[in-house]
Amino acid sequence: MPIKYVYFFGAGKAEGNGKQKDLLGGKGAGLAEMSRAGVPVPAGFTLTTDVCRYYYAHGRRVPSELESQMKSALLRLEKVSGKKFGDPKNYLLVSVRSGAKFSMPGMMDTILNLGINDKVVDGIVAKTGNPRFAWDSYRRFIQMFGNVVMGIEKSEFEHLLSAKKKERGITLDTQFTADDLRDLVTRYKALYRHKTGQDFPQDGWKQLVSARDAVFKSWMNDRAISYRRMNRISEELGTAVNVQEMVFGNTGDRSGTGVGFTRNPSNGDKEFFGEYLTNAQGEDVVAGVRTPKPLKELEKEIPACYKQLWQITSKLEKHYRDVQDFEFTIEDEKLFMLQTRTGKRTGLAAVKIAVDMVHEKLITKDEAILRVEPDQLSQLLAPVFDEREKKKAVLVAKGINAGPGAASGAVAFSAERAVALAKEGPALLVRPETNPDDIEGMDAAQGILTAIGGRTSHAAVVARGMGKPCIVGCSALRIDEHAGTMAVDGHNVKEGEHLSIDGFTGEVFVGKIPTLPSEVVRVLRGELNPKDSELFRYFKEFMTWADAVRKLKVRANADVPRDAKAARSLGAEGIGLCRTEHMFFDGERLPLMQKMILAENVVERKRALDELLPFQKEDFVGLFREMRGFPVTIRTLDPPLHEFLPKTQEDAEELSKKISIPTAKIWAKSQDLHEFNPMLGHRGCRLGIVYPEITEMQVQAIIGAACELAKEKIRIVPEIMIPLVGTKAELKNQKDLAIKAANETMKSYGVKVNYLVGTMIEVPRAAITAGAIAEEADFFSFGTNDLTQMGFGYSRDDSGSFIPTYLVEKILKEDPFLTLDQEGIGKLIEIAATEGRKVKKDLKLGICGEHGGDPASVKFFHRTGLNYVSCSPYRIPIARLAAAQAVLEAKNKSEYSQK
Amino acid sequence: MPIKYVYFFGAGKAEGNGKQKDLLGGKGAGLAEMSRAGVPVPAGFTLTTDVCRYYYAHGRRVPSELESQMKSALLRLEKVSGKKFGDPKNYLLVSVRSGAKFSMPGMMDTILNLGINDKVVDGIVAKTGNPRFAWDSYRRFIQMFGNVVMGIEKSEFEHLLSAKKKERGITLDTQFTADDLRDLVTRYKALYRHKTGQDFPQDGWKQLVSARDAVFKSWMNDRAISYRRMNRISEELGTAVNVQEMVFGNTGDRSGTGVGFTRNPSNGDKEFFGEYLTNAQGEDVVAGVRTPKPLKELEKEIPACYKQLWQITSKLEKHYRDVQDFEFTIEDEKLFMLQTRTGKRTGLAAVKIAVDMVHEKLITKDEAILRVEPDQLSQLLAPVFDEREKKKAVLVAKGINAGPGAASGAVAFSAERAVALAKEGPALLVRPETNPDDIEGMDAAQGILTAIGGRTSHAAVVARGMGKPCIVGCSALRIDEHAGTMAVDGHNVKEGEHLSIDGFTGEVFVGKIPTLPSEVVRVLRGELNPKDSELFRYFKEFMTWADAVRKLKVRANADVPRDAKAARSLGAEGIGLCRTEHMFFDGERLPLMQKMILAENVVERKRALDELLPFQKEDFVGLFREMRGFPVTIRTLDPPLHEFLPKTQEDAEELSKKISIPTAKIWAKSQDLHEFNPMLGHRGCRLGIVYPEITEMQVQAIIGAACELAKEKIRIVPEIMIPLVGTKAELKNQKDLAIKAANETMKSYGVKVNYLVGTMIEVPRAAITAGAIAEEADFFSFGTNDLTQMGFGYSRDDSGSFIPTYLVEKILKEDPFLTLDQEGIGKLIEIAATEGRKVKKDLKLGICGEHGGDPASVKFFHRTGLNYVSCSPYRIPIARLAAAQAVLEAKNKSEYSQK
Repeated sequence: MPIKYVYFFGAGKAEGNGKQKDLLGGKGAGLAEMSRAGVPVPAGFTLTTDVCRYYYAHGRRVPSELESQMKSALLRLEKVSGKKFGDPKNYLLVSVRSGAKFSMPGMMDTILNLGINDKVVDGIVAKTGNPRFAWDSYRRFIQMFGNVVMGIEKSEFEHLLSAKKKERGITLDTQFTADDLRDLVTRYKALYRHKTGQDFPQDGWKQLVSARDAVFKSWMNDRAISYRRMNRISEELGTAVNVQEMVFGNTGDRSGTGVGFTRNPSNGDKEFFGEYLTNAQGEDVVAGVRTPKPLKELEKEIPACYKQLWQITSKLEKHYRDVQDFEFTIEDEKLFMLQTRTGKRTGLAAVKIAVDMVHEKLITKDEAILRVEPDQLSQLLAPVFDEREKKKAVLVAKGINAGPGAASGAVAFSAERAVALAKEGPALLVRPETNPDDIEGMDAAQGILTAIGGRTSHAAVVARGMGKPCIVGCSALRIDEHAGTMAVDGHNVKEGEHLSIDGFTGEVFVGKIPTLPSEVVRVLRGELNPKDSELFRYFKEFMTWADAVRKLKVRANADVPRDAKAARSLGAEGIGLCRTEHMFFDGERLPLMQKMILAENVVERKRALDELLPFQKEDFVGLFREMRGFPVTIRTLDPPLHEFLPKTQEDAEELSKKISIPTAKIWAKSQDLHEFNPMLGHRGCRLGIVYPEITEMQVQAIIGAACELAKEKIRIVPEIMIPLVGTKAELKNQKDLAIKAANETMKSYGVKVNYLVGTMIEVPRAAITAGAIAEEADFFSFGTNDLTQMGFGYSRDDSGSFIPTYLVEKILKEDPFLTLDQEGIGKLIEIAATEGRKVKKDLKLGICGEHGGDPASVKFFHRTGLNYVSCSPYRIPIARLAAAQAVLEAKNKSEYSQK
Repeated sequence: MPIKYVYFFGAGKAEGNGKQKDLLGGKGAGLAEMSRAGVPVPAGFTLTTDVCRYYYAHGRRVPSELESQMKSALLRLEKVSGKKFGDPKNYLLVSVRSGAKFSMPGMMDTILNLGINDKVVDGIVAKTGNPRFAWDSYRRFIQMFGNVVMGIEKSEFEHLLSAKKKERGITLDTQFTADDLRDLVTRYKALYRHKTGQDFPQDGWKQLVSARDAVFKSWMNDRAISYRRMNRISEELGTAVNVQEMVFGNTGDRSGTGVGFTRNPSNGDKEFFGEYLTNAQGEDVVAGVRTPKPLKELEKEIPACYKQLWQITSKLEKHYRDVQDFEFTIEDEKLFMLQTRTGKRTGLAAVKIAVDMVHEKLITKDEAILRVEPDQLSQLLAPVFDEREKKKAVLVAKGINAGPGAASGAVAFSAERAVALAKEGPALLVRPETNPDDIEGMDAAQGILTAIGGRTSHAAVVARGMGKPCIVGCSALRIDEHAGTMAVDGHNVKEGEHLSIDGFTGEVFVGKIPTLPSEVVRVLRGELNPKDSELFRYFKEFMTWADAVRKLKVRANADVPRDAKAARSLGAEGIGLCRTEHMFFDGERLPLMQKMILAENVVERKRALDELLPFQKEDFVGLFREMRGFPVTIRTLDPPLHEFLPKTQEDAEELSKKISIPTAKIWAKSQDLHEFNPMLGHRGCRLGIVYPEITEMQVQAIIGAACELAKEKIRIVPEIMIPLVGTKAELKNQKDLAIKAANETMKSYGVKVNYLVGTMIEVPRAAITAGAIAEEADFFSFGTNDLTQMGFGYSRDDSGSFIPTYLVEKILKEDPFLTLDQEGIGKLIEIAATEGRKVKKDLKLGICGEHGGDPASVKFFHRTGLNYVSCSPYRIPIARLAAAQAVLEAKNKSEYSQK
């Protein structure tokens, strides 16, 4: 049997169904499912993603069986619609659209009105009695086909359009007469012939085949590749192509087109939410060219359609058990559903909708946990403006609040400039409207502001996906991109000057406004009553569910009491990494540290260390107090000593005055300590081995602090962590030293405290020989930053010269510093975990690199059997959720494999 | 049954035997074996190495059972000798000496004449009628005991001795009368009391117990630790202690003491070889204080003893089937053998003796192969002086040629200065005599020159062990260590000035003399007829045996035809690493390379590369021609590009003039390419991926060269090697590119050539994911330098700040850059080999890091199943021998385990 490449849908039936997203794409599966459910969708057929994969695997050719299958489907479509492709008297027009498994809004190509030719256009005139509509449709079709299929620049067509306007002395498209449009069609066709050397194709089948190939080709355009990379969508998926009977929202005032959500995708409120335009085709709404009306107004304008729309979409939400993002067209008061899919939403909305749906008994708690992307939680924790400062700020405009959060930054009027400015500090991308070419600039910017477009415009959809503050449709802006200036409310803002946007309210201010913690964070800090924050209550309920499910503990990387306190409020169950060196950069202490480094012998060095000891002990007392009852892992000194010394001779002179050591000596030491590859140099436990008195002092401080608190009946179990261990002997050396210092300290306090001595596993050799190292270790903590650096041989500071190319060339799927490389670095972690636990069955395993806050990595750590992850305080809720999802995903997988 | 800690020997019997070196040490086992064989050795007993291990494991206490066992042995010794310990009328005196499994000449402590006290000394006077001998013996005993057991500085005793000489107006020790010596004993005892607060012990048993403990303690003195580290002797072995009846070589002119070898340990000649001193104790010979007479003269002086000595030692050589290094003493014309052990020898001697012994049917070829330390072969390849230059040089002295090879260097008069000077260039250590404290300086120096001492002096023995050129007994030298000058033959040589020594002839020259390749190398290069070189014939025969046994192929690291030629002559079976970048540092090419790096776009870059192409191709044509029929592995560009750019603004200015690019641009690029950790930066295949045109050009050159030679019917299979690969995708990217470039090049030449594309495995992640990488690789070559750097996280350039401490603290057993770390880095190699061969059963595996020339590492590579090692040309014979030994060691091990 030949492979089935074409799936028909329409008239209450469908060959496919809603589960076949892999094969039919999201849109195709949705159309099939809607068709089956009796939802009024224009009939049509879907070319499967198999065709796309075949197309790229065979030098951009489609399978030979495809044409006959397409022809059969077209015949069936003619039968169902009662129309005929290419018949001027009873013409059938179709749209050709992409549709991948995951929505990629605006990234690939679409062609509408396909099937019009010089004869059919007359038929449209005859049938509709609306020559203006007929010629406008033909004009649009030629432009779309010319641009998408033949690669003629859009601007070439726009140029002809502007010229015509000038000739006619008009300014708006709507002022064109039918004759004007007919004349434009002639000019468009001439342009087409000039650019392609061919006449515009009159054969409908030829139009269809060319459009189909163009859509497959657009799977690999730059925008699509870039979008997939940012959204981690596999290229292997391919896109389907949907060929569907055209319905027209632009036949007059009783027609229209719109998009909507079954709940508010910005804040999660349970309301029917959307926008529409009368007398318009679909692309007009999402392209953001005209500012559409809220869906509510449709209730007044065409009440029957509104009611039907509400009923259908409510049913769809129940059917799919999730928020639906739908498109519809009304052709002469007849409603057609064009698409429905799971609605994208902000983090705030995701949490609220998930919790509400559990209460509505639509989904289970487990499902709710899986409904929120862990990274989205950062939107609940994102800063807001300081209200007092905001009150003082100069409000210059108000737009549509399309993405929550507050952002302040230097203004960039193009994506390229946003990328450039973002390298120097926070940037804001300000555009008349955004389009898919702006993706990189949007990614680089702190926030996005546009002059036109609604909540479902490109800017709004993409910004919400990225979790960035966004304001759209801010019509007061007068942007002159080329001059690099913007006029607003009497102010003239130049590129690089600061602007602030409040994505919660839609307010735009000139200048910088300091930001404050989010509502959730303010409640956590006790600055706001939970009763006054609905958001916090949702957040708390949701996180309680996640915490009940997860097995992995979540700790924080925190060095000072302030961070420890924040971490506790965000749910940290201990500190997984306290970097002691950060304490030494502090004003009073740095000169002491420098004296220690400049010491000429052990006696001098010990003297300087003795001066540092009380400071260090105070730090730990503070930290332990905050974390009472929880474990605190303290890493002994890690960075190379030259980091503490002056980098220039001038700085050396200044230091000389401060610590009364000759400049020459300071500078000589600084030079002497210079390293070619500091990352692989004299740091980590190598310091403590060459200068045992440093480790000694640190252990005295740690155990001393624990002893002092023990006297106050505060119980704490410090975990002393030795960094950069590569051999068992290194750990043994430092451990023996630590035990000796700890015993002496406890003796001097007359107190006994429990403590552990463990090691970081961050050197590849340590992972490989973890069995031997485990003999000396009370715990392992994986330092995935260094393990990635050394495992790959990538210096984090230098890899900027090749990692971008690697991502573009797909040599790396992800930046391994952001998401753990599970195949290689993960393998090292697995080896170390396995070998370590062979020696000590209950060896405590954790991870304290940046990856501790990356959801995909957290899930890997759960699967690898780690006991905890440690991350920066504001990533803690994300890690907690990811850990819960890891449990549920494993459960779903094992249930699936049992079936 | 209690553990037996004491083994008796003497009177033709022994409780132990020659195989018990682990338990009795080399000396103890030898004495037992000789005793059993009827060789006249002074009777005594050995305290086992178990005692030593117990001593260190139990806080420096001996086992409680030891004393009673020692007392029984002492009683038996009294019985056998017919003497009594502490009995003035029939006194028994003993020596107490260390004796570890492996000889550590002079590193540990020895005490002679033990048992003398105020009463016994009178007994000696009475019995020998030689009061001078009696009081001198007592004096020596107090000094040795005071120094070794109680830690009184030798100089304190020397000071009293000098003072006495002054009083008496004499200059030589021999001028002292018995009364002088008696008075000195009184003064020595006073010094002893002053320093220790105790009287010199009169109880013999107390003397013995203290001496025993002092010897055990000396196992851990700095010299012994340092010697073990350099000679890779495990600390766990411990030392035995031998207590043996004293015999006296210093009772008069019919007495004497000497050392000898059954064959010449310098050149391997089959001759009875040694030195002795009349009227002297053993230490006098090896300490090099007096210059001894050749053994030949003994034949005239005491013919009976000479004949007996010759018979006994010949028998011993046959018995042990190896050259014997023996010590003897003649007490009043009665011969005692004090020790026999396997003789240390130079590389030259080792080869010659091994080959001779096979011809004499004393040993098998397999045994012969195992008799030469691979590293010793470097002595056969070590440079000699250019004879013409040597003729012009100023000969200032002639000494004893104690270590072969030629050396030129800056003079250092102390070990410390030698270490310091060696950091700046080649250094020569010049000393009146050397002692164990000089070990580090000897190691740092290129060669060693002493004023006194013979071929078996400390300097000679240690230098031969180190394979360093050495001249001893050069009495013309007048060294003033404190002034840092030396007078010789009217010349005044200051520290840091240059001297040249010819260890083959014993000649000393002022100034530098250029060196030339060794005799063997000259034959290999065709500069000398093999008929004129006995040494070459021995070398060739020996290497033929090794080659017949080994399985591992040996290739060379060579970049230019000259090196390739040398490598072939030394037995290279191909090139395992050709570093293409070395070609770009050449005069004409560097500016082109710099233009390439400074190119602003691909077009400019390609233009510069096109200019480089013919040069690069010529290089390969030359290399391939030398290696015809053998594989040549070429690594694509590896170092970061900034290495090719000027390091200072002045250099940038100069370059600017040369290549007509503005200085500012050059300097900016140089700054721009600066990296924080270049070792982990933009290098290796990361260059070829970001700048594919570089790889392209290199492949065009490689394949172009192969095509040109193919036209000349010279067959060559280039192996294109991609460096620094960490992921399969990287290799695939470069391989695809290489195949494309290769195809185009072959097409343009109209020739087909075979080639391989493989990868270095030098990034830990590559080793871990070798299974995936193997899918794209024709071969793997392990880059153990980088694998060690990244696996340990040690920058080779920076690790000098902690590796020395690591070696002292025994955190590392070896410097992992010199000898492969088998536990960790070796494990990565094993994983990669296993995973790679799982995917491709016959995957070719090689190694091209520095470790390819290190014997221990080569043996590991054999065991891991690699196909070849690649090393620098002059290490090739070493690798060949190590590879053969690896086969034999595995065979012996499996035979052993079958028994």
